[in-house]
Formats: sequence, structure tokens, C-alpha cells
Amino acid sequence: MPLLTSHQVLDIRFPTSESLDGSDAMHTDPDYSAAYVILRTNQPGLEGHGLTFTCGRGTEIVAATADVLCRMLTGTSLDSITQDFAGWWRRLTSDSQLRWIGPEKGVIHLATAAVVNALWDLWAKVEAKPLWKLLADMPAEQLVSTIDFRYLADALTPAEALAILKANDPTRNEREAELHHTGFPAYTTSTGWLGYPDEKIIRLVREGIAAGWNHFKIKVGANLEDDRRRAALVRREIGPDRKLMVDANQIWDVPTAIDHIRALAEFNPWWVEEPTSPDDVVGHAAIAQAVAPIGIATGEMCQNRMIFKQLMQLDAIRFCQLDSCRLGGINECLAVMLLAKRFDIPVCPHAGGVGLCEHVNHLIMVDYIRIGASLENRVAEYVDHLHEHFEHPVVVRNARYLPPTAPGYSITMKSTSLRDYAFPQGPVWQRKLSP
Amino acid sequence: MPLLTSHQVLDIRFPTSESLDGSDAMHTDPDYSAAYVILRTNQPGLEGHGLTFTCGRGTEIVAATADVLCRMLTGTSLDSITQDFAGWWRRLTSDSQLRWIGPEKGVIHLATAAVVNALWDLWAKVEAKPLWKLLADMPAEQLVSTIDFRYLADALTPAEALAILKANDPTRNEREAELHHTGFPAYTTSTGWLGYPDEKIIRLVREGIAAGWNHFKIKVGANLEDDRRRAALVRREIGPDRKLMVDANQIWDVPTAIDHIRALAEFNPWWVEEPTSPDDVVGHAAIAQAVAPIGIATGEMCQNRMIFKQLMQLDAIRFCQLDSCRLGGINECLAVMLLAKRFDIPVCPHAGGVGLCEHVNHLIMVDYIRIGASLENRVAEYVDHLHEHFEHPVVVRNARYLPPTAPGYSITMKSTSLRDYAFPQGPVWQRKLSP
Repeated sequence: MPLLTSHQVLDIRFPTSESLDGSDAMHTDPDYSAAYVILRTNQPGLEGHGLTFTCGRGTEIVAATADVLCRMLTGTSLDSITQDFAGWWRRLTSDSQLRWIGPEKGVIHLATAAVVNALWDLWAKVEAKPLWKLLADMPAEQLVSTIDFRYLADALTPAEALAILKANDPTRNEREAELHHTGFPAYTTSTGWLGYPDEKIIRLVREGIAAGWNHFKIKVGANLEDDRRRAALVRREIGPDRKLMVDANQIWDVPTAIDHIRALAEFNPWWVEEPTSPDDVVGHAAIAQAVAPIGIATGEMCQNRMIFKQLMQLDAIRFCQLDSCRLGGINECLAVMLLAKRFDIPVCPHAGGVGLCEHVNHLIMVDYIRIGASLENRVAEYVDHLHEHFEHPVVVRNARYLPPTAPGYSITMKSTSLRDYAFPQGPVWQRKLSP
Repeated sequence: MPLLTSHQVLDIRFPTSESLDGSDAMHTDPDYSAAYVILRTNQPGLEGHGLTFTCGRGTEIVAATADVLCRMLTGTSLDSITQDFAGWWRRLTSDSQLRWIGPEKGVIHLATAAVVNALWDLWAKVEAKPLWKLLADMPAEQLVSTIDFRYLADALTPAEALAILKANDPTRNEREAELHHTGFPAYTTSTGWLGYPDEKIIRLVREGIAAGWNHFKIKVGANLEDDRRRAALVRREIGPDRKLMVDANQIWDVPTAIDHIRALAEFNPWWVEEPTSPDDVVGHAAIAQAVAPIGIATGEMCQNRMIFKQLMQLDAIRFCQLDSCRLGGINECLAVMLLAKRFDIPVCPHAGGVGLCEHVNHLIMVDYIRIGASLENRVAEYVDHLHEHFEHPVVVRNARYLPPTAPGYSITMKSTSLRDYAFPQGPVWQRKLSP
């Protein structure tokens, strides 16, 4: 049985700020990055890889934190972890001294995600299955046993989670077959970054329509006039039937959000994403009530299952955009997907960044096969960049994610990318940083 | 005018886990620690000192983060910061790349507190006033101008904040004089740490009563039988009129909290502190409604002003226990104190730890003189340890905090303590860590 013997944590950065890919109202010049974890074992060549997405500066802080967490695992057998995964997850997130600097939020939770995702990658590789298939085949009781239900009792108990899985079990093979055949619907954010000029947006939307995309998202929040012009422009290009989504990236306070969304209503947005602070559950509820039937979406910066629980309890979101690295890895993603099922809210995961599409590809398969079990109002984000750095990049065809086939969590980066983009010592950064 | 020329960040740890001082249901073995910031200037001997409290492991992560933030300040004049303090606060908390690893929560916000508090310490030293006096004398408009009101518009506007201050201005000198004369009421947590045996608690309670204390807090949450025994024991010792508070340190989920608090009701707790996750605003509201008239208190792990805003909007807390280092320094503490005034909730700050009593001493003076302007249901935490490491330790007499007199924010540690307790290179740790 594999034993965790050592680890390595890397700070990998891509200089995306040069082209303003990924620019939005709050993140004007991101260098898409990753704190990247490698868990080594006593079996030659058998490694678990995991990452958490970051935006450049600060990656070194998350990497240092992941290193601290990895040390808790050294000398442990993978078996002893997977047989008590909820217990280990609690140990990683609730260390009696470390929890003060979280708990379960921000830096330490991002680092937890990288480490926990590397454990799942390793487990799936040992089982010689892609991660989604490991979870698709797992007995319901075992899947529930991986989740730490702390603080969820007023919304979701283990028994309720088990009932959800059991109810879906008889039909899960049909949904798995369907995914192999037609994939899971995706939408694109590649068209509307805030830094792009109008002509570039028009060109990208037209290319997107030609490639079969039916959902288009644009960034808003710089100023109302620009936002209205860009929304009108995209709506004109996509026609009345395709979906337009807008994303404010937390730029507004609650009253401004309500005014601004009402001023965009004529362009018929399907959802408005991150209208205000991701911490403001009550604010999201107020906005949702004021702008209905326009749906409110959030999640990429929602720090843990407790925030999602409250967003659902207060009927504050119509779409749950959980983030595979903001939450503390697969175990907590499963908890949030189960919560969403309980509250009948579609899960439309956040992606883009570095490796998030690769992660999300597995999560949506698991959600459809075992938890949400519906495609209604489901659409997973897709951004077409940085996939070339992964050994098993995501496959999207006809605007649909196809099930991954390689064993693991699809997060292993090519060794050349790990070498070239290492910060600051890799050759790409040495060239950029040299005077 | 002082110019910020360089900085130093230290990792200072006290081996408090040896005696279980500070032990509670979630933090079973804390080593009370600090990420400690020194901002140096072009004026010899003029330095700003600030810290954020931590629990041992993880201090190095917060210290590394504070170092990143300090670098943003180098070369800036203190004047240019204090003349646009809200703007600088926003710059520190909203860096377009760094905010991804927060924003405004956990590691990065704890680090922000240390840096921002050091700036205020420096400003007060330049003005040759204790920090509370700098704020007591400041024109209302200037005080409001230090606050970043982002995400508060649905609960508190700058105009409303100004109106609160203006309404209190005519009587502020009376309250200041009163504080000099009689101080601000305190309560003690030194008696009831979870790791203490019953006999030690009895002895400490009796000593506390003899020293004039009227409020006693005990830790609960290990198991109901123990909690009932300890609550009964303390209630018997203090009699029916003194106040008993209990602190669960987030151990319960919502239904368990309700059951457990009801089972403690016969001992008449004045408040129950941290019944569940600090992130669960909706859960606190449910608990508060179920256990009234017992008051719910929380705050030491409430990550920012948005969480306090919601706790107040949902009527989820009867006592606001803001933490001077969990929030992003004085500027955000002022915002939360103003919110509390708007919602008529007493501010009873969290203290203890390392240096928190020294911080809190200033905050309660400012709150009474300029914002809350009442002593009703106000009581500030006091824990009698680690004060000997500070150059100007807090003075508590007859169970009341007295106004600090030395210029600054009272956070400068003795150079011998900074040397001896530096982790891991200080002699105290070298002795402990050597085999």
C-alpha cells in the first residue's frame, strides 16, 4: 500500500497580465498562478498532484502554507487516510494552533484544497480510474463517509445525504452513459474580459457562436455606461435566445448592485454573478429579492460550506458557483453539491484560472451522475487558456465537457511547464525580471 | 515629516501550552504568539509597532504576509497615509493580485491588522498622544475619513457615521473625564480555561471576587455533564447577582447549540459566546431566537465588517465582541463600533491573547467617548497574563480598565522579550527545541 514519504510545493506563475486575459473589475492585472503540491510515495513514479489557483502575488504564501499541511501527512499510508477521510479532513482543517489563522477560509483553506486534491488524485491513480469514475462507482455510504458534516446539521445530515445518493443510484448508469455520449453543457467566459476592446469582443462572440456556444458571459462593473454598451453589443450579436450572463466581481455595495442590475435588465441577463462581497449572504438575499426574476450567482470566493449553506437558506442565489480550490478540496465540494440538491439549486461551477476547468470537469460528472442528477439550468464555466500546460487537458467539444479518461484528477502539469514557469527561478520569469 | 524607510517582522511565541492557559474546546494547546511588525522611519528612534495575535503554528505564515504588505509602504510619508487613510487601507486590502487569497479574511487580514495598527501607533507617537486620545480629539469628519465604507451602504453611510459622532461631541469631555476617574468595566476569563481542574477554578473565582470582579466567564463545550458541573460550581461561588458568561468556542452545530444552551439556562448565563461557526450568521440568528433571553455573543473570529453587519441586521448577537487584530486594524474597528451604535448593540471587545488587552484598552475609551457613549451592558475582556512583556502594559484597577497614558498604541514589547521569545531562534525556544 502506498505510503506518503515526501512532498514538494511549487510556486507556478503564468504572465497573463501582459494580455489582460482574466481582467475584471477587481482583478485588473492577474498573473494566473498555482500553488502546486506533489505528494510522493514509496512506490516509484506514483505521485499525487494537486493545485490551488491564485492570481500572482501571494502564491508564495499559499505555497508555504501547503507545505505546513503536507508535513502532517508524511509517514501516513494512503489507506489510513481514505478509510477515514472525513477525520483526516477535520485534522487538516482544525489543527488546534493553525485554525486561528483561518479557520477554513482564505490562505489556509486554499492550501488545504491543493493538498486534499492531491490526495484524491493519488487515490484515483491507485484505483486506475479518473477521479469522477472513482466517485461514480463508490458505494453511497463510502462517499458520504468522506464528508465532514460539521456546522451543516441545520441544513443537511449524513442520513439526508445518503438518501439523495440512494435515490439516484438506480438511474446513475444511464446518466454516465449519456455523459460519454454527449458530455456536460459548458459556457464560455473567454469573450468578455474587462480589458478587451469592443472590436475584440465582437470578433470573439462571433467565433463563439460559430463554434456552437450558447451562453456568453461578460465582465461588468467599471461604469454603467460601458456596461450597458457592452451588454447591448453582446445581446445584439447573440440574438434573443442565447443566454447572456454578466459578472460584476464584487464591485458593488447592495444598493448600487440593485440599481445597476435594474439598469441592465433590458438586455435580459440570465444571471448576475458576484454582485457584492462574497461574505455578504444577507446582501445577496436583498439583491436577489429586488432584481428577480434575474438570477443571482456567486461562489468563486465563497470560502466554505457554511457560506453556501446560508446563501441557500436565505434563497440568495439561483446558481451555485462552487470553486474546486476555494473550498477545501473534493470532500467539501461534495458537501456543497449535496446542499445544493437539498435546496434545489443548480451547481454551475466556477472555472477558468489555472487547472480549474480540469478540476470542474470531474465535479460536474459526479454531480450529474450521483447528486444533482439533472442538466436543467446547469452549465459549467469554460475558459480557453493555459490548458496546454497539463498532461491531460480538458476536452470540450460542441460546447460540452467530455468525461476525462486518464487516471487521477487531471491536474498533473507537464514537467517543462513546472520548470519554465516556476517563480521566480524559472527561465520565463528570469527573463521578465532581469533588468 | 516621518518617511517610512524600512520594516522588520518578527515571529514571537510564548510557550503557554505548558500550563494550558488559554485552553478551550477548539484550541486545546495554544502557544500564545504574535506576528510583530516594526515600521522604521527616517527619524532616529521613531518607530511604529503593531502586532496580530496568533496561537503558535502558523505565525510564520502571517509574519511572511505582513512582510509583503509592509513592502507596499516603504518610501511613503506618514502624512500621505494619514491624509488618505481610507484610501491606503483599501490599497492594502484590495491589491488586485493579493486579494484572491483573502479577500479581507484569515491570514491576509490578520497581517493587515498588524501593519495598520503599527501605522496608527506611529501616528499617535508623532502626535505625542496615546492612540485613544488622538481619536478622542480628532475632528469628526477626519475620523470618518479614515474608514473604508465599502459594502456597508445598506447599513451605515458616511453621513450616518458622522451624525453619530456629532451627536456625541457636546458631551464627550464629560465621558473622558469619567474614564480618567473610574475607568471602563472589565471582566475576567482567567478563571475558567477548559484545561483547569475544578479546585483551581474555585480558588481563582474566590480570588477574583476578593479582587472586585463581578463578571466571570468559563469555557464550555467539552461535554454537557462537565459543562453543567462547572457552571453550577461557578454560579454557587459567585452568587445570584454577579454575571456568569459561558464560551463554547464554536464547538456546536446549530441544533446542538440550542439544546446545550437550554441545558445551561438554569445557571442563568448572561451571554453564550461563540456557540457555532463564526461564519454562520444565519445559524447565530436561529440560536439567538431559540434561547432568548439568554444573549448570544461572538466576534473574535468574525473576519471583517461584513460579517458584523449581517449579525446585526439579522438580530443574531446581543454583544459585539470585535477583535482588534482579526479586523483589519483601527480603521475597520471604528466601522464596526459605528455599526454597533446604529443597531444599538454594546461593544464588548475580545481580549486576552498577546497584547489584545493593550489594544482593547484604547478601543473601549474611543467607543465610550465618541461612538457608543454608554456603559450599559458594556464590559471588556481581561486576561491576566503576558502583560509583563510590554513596555506600557495595560492597567486594570478594581476590575476597570484605566486610560493608557503613553504615546502610541501600547503595543511595543520589551526588547528582551522580542529577543528571548523569537521563534525558533530565541533562547527560550532553543532550550525547548533542543533534544
